[in-house]
Amino acid sequence: MKIGVVGGGQLGQMMALDCLPLGLSFQFLDPAIDACAGLVGELIVANYDDEQGIKALIASSDRVTFEFESVPPATVAQIAEQRPVYPSAQALEIARDRLLEKNLFRSLGIETAPFYDVLSQQDLNQAVKEIGFPAIIKTRTLGYDGKGQKVLKSVEDAQDCFAELGSVPLLYEGFVNFDDELSCIAVRSENGDCKFYPLVKNDHRQSILHFSIVQNNHPLQALGEKQAKAVLDKLDYVGVMTFEYFRKGEQLLANEVAPRVHNSGHWSIEGADVSQFENHIRAIAGLPLGNTHSSKNVAMFNIVGKACDEVKLLKVEGAHLHMYHKIEKPGRKIGHITFVQEDDILFAQGLKDIEALLKNDLG
Amino acid sequence: MKIGVVGGGQLGQMMALDCLPLGLSFQFLDPAIDACAGLVGELIVANYDDEQGIKALIASSDRVTFEFESVPPATVAQIAEQRPVYPSAQALEIARDRLLEKNLFRSLGIETAPFYDVLSQQDLNQAVKEIGFPAIIKTRTLGYDGKGQKVLKSVEDAQDCFAELGSVPLLYEGFVNFDDELSCIAVRSENGDCKFYPLVKNDHRQSILHFSIVQNNHPLQALGEKQAKAVLDKLDYVGVMTFEYFRKGEQLLANEVAPRVHNSGHWSIEGADVSQFENHIRAIAGLPLGNTHSSKNVAMFNIVGKACDEVKLLKVEGAHLHMYHKIEKPGRKIGHITFVQEDDILFAQGLKDIEALLKNDLG
Repeated sequence: MKIGVVGGGQLGQMMALDCLPLGLSFQFLDPAIDACAGLVGELIVANYDDEQGIKALIASSDRVTFEFESVPPATVAQIAEQRPVYPSAQALEIARDRLLEKNLFRSLGIETAPFYDVLSQQDLNQAVKEIGFPAIIKTRTLGYDGKGQKVLKSVEDAQDCFAELGSVPLLYEGFVNFDDELSCIAVRSENGDCKFYPLVKNDHRQSILHFSIVQNNHPLQALGEKQAKAVLDKLDYVGVMTFEYFRKGEQLLANEVAPRVHNSGHWSIEGADVSQFENHIRAIAGLPLGNTHSSKNVAMFNIVGKACDEVKLLKVEGAHLHMYHKIEKPGRKIGHITFVQEDDILFAQGLKDIEALLKNDLG
Repeated sequence: MKIGVVGGGQLGQMMALDCLPLGLSFQFLDPAIDACAGLVGELIVANYDDEQGIKALIASSDRVTFEFESVPPATVAQIAEQRPVYPSAQALEIARDRLLEKNLFRSLGIETAPFYDVLSQQDLNQAVKEIGFPAIIKTRTLGYDGKGQKVLKSVEDAQDCFAELGSVPLLYEGFVNFDDELSCIAVRSENGDCKFYPLVKNDHRQSILHFSIVQNNHPLQALGEKQAKAVLDKLDYVGVMTFEYFRKGEQLLANEVAPRVHNSGHWSIEGADVSQFENHIRAIAGLPLGNTHSSKNVAMFNIVGKACDEVKLLKVEGAHLHMYHKIEKPGRKIGHITFVQEDDILFAQGLKDIEALLKNDLG
């Protein structure tokens, strides 16, 4: 079976690395001639809305999936006419629109921060009145890694903000003074089986994920899974979906979903029995899901902008290096490190050692 | 860094799958246009003694290694003039000749079966007198998977045997009525660090490896490692070397070495912290060796000649499928299954379930 992937970055690369051994082949559609997934599959170099490129992808793929949610809807529709596509057009539509996903959470009784749909400066002023400050204003679509959003602390910040963010549909959200950001990688198969990885606690630097640490036996695991399952079942979803939660005390507020494998699940390659990449593709390919059980102490660091000294890094027992074969550039994710270490003391020390070795350049 | 590999089969494929994430790239020299490692690296299609092919491999490789030991010596010499080559020409020469390796064992005080160098039918008759029956007569070079060898039980079997095996140099070995065949995957870095995987017990069918099961805490582990280390140090070896032993009671007789990653180490991809493939390439590339610690219950089954039902297989919790993207053919290794299961009862049951799912065609 050949899997077509829209997007040819590191997520696609890791899908192929983990799933070529299942006997599957991969091809990727990406506008960049040096897209890094091209190392492990055929690369069709074309824009995501290029009809010839999409036709080529369809022609030699048995099933199609996506590396990111901002796929042009016409592309999804064109593919879905001829091939099974997971996740579905409906799931993508909801996940790429912050308002639709928040409305979905609300309809399923899942708690969120207060939010307000903003289509004009007038709406924004009304949101200020109803929700107040501090708040975050975000574009409803196309935002990632902190792009397309702004923190508002006062009426002055809110003035002319609609125009400043491009006069596009926005979502005004009450600021949650959360304790942690947690994520849950969930996967659902064609026949409705669901599996969940343990919750992961995430830390960001300049809005780019810096560090994730696996939370085995977290007291909110069951609630996180229940909420995730409600969404997956509602959408009759197939593949991996990532749920980002804010934890405030014992409260879990759904922030957003990503209808795909996610940076906060990269640890699963060595840290879980079957990785998020393999489970996503198993779901897409109609294969049984694998065990999501995690090792005892697992963490992940992103390598951003600049590589670190690989010799020093690999001397840290339990450190696993993943470089994506991408050119260094400030703010660009070029690799990650998974750290798995059963011994608690060595784990705590190793976290410090790895942190000290990073030479990240966030730009 | 780019690693050149002479040979483009599943061993090279698994090296690349495990080591592309280290930021390394791979190219393979192989006469087959559909060599399966071509999925994960550049493929130079040429015979192993083709000068242009070898030049192309040298031109774009920083360091070179081998997938198999029967590399033409002239090829090794040609590469070694211009690039670091591991394992060395000397190590390959010894490992591809059963007499030289047996002599090396003997010189290091490592026990072996009794053996006799056979260059003629006269020599063979003399070997019969000195060692007796039963015995195994093997070509000194180029044998694998039981090819190029014959069991001798009587003077009749030995008659004309030299001509029958092609009038090439042979080794006559006294038959060891062993309890187990064990192997030890060892790895040594440029600076002399050595690491050893746990001993593995191997079962063959029609001389093709069928099943390997990891022996954690085996009483002969220390002896196996000591013997392996003596050979590695003597050869100033760099990379993975596999030691095949016969166990008879508490005695460990060295049978042969393979100067490469080995089928009996495939379990290490999921079953050990760092796989034999990654550790081999780490050694070749001058990187620190990774931990060889193994999970609790680990086994490996070869998929030979005919694929099995992947859906049924992946329902066995802890079963990991590795298909090599090779065409089915009786007797051909086309994939393997690693089975990792912490629970003893589920492990025992899973072994039976997987065995029952195999549709191997040994030819």
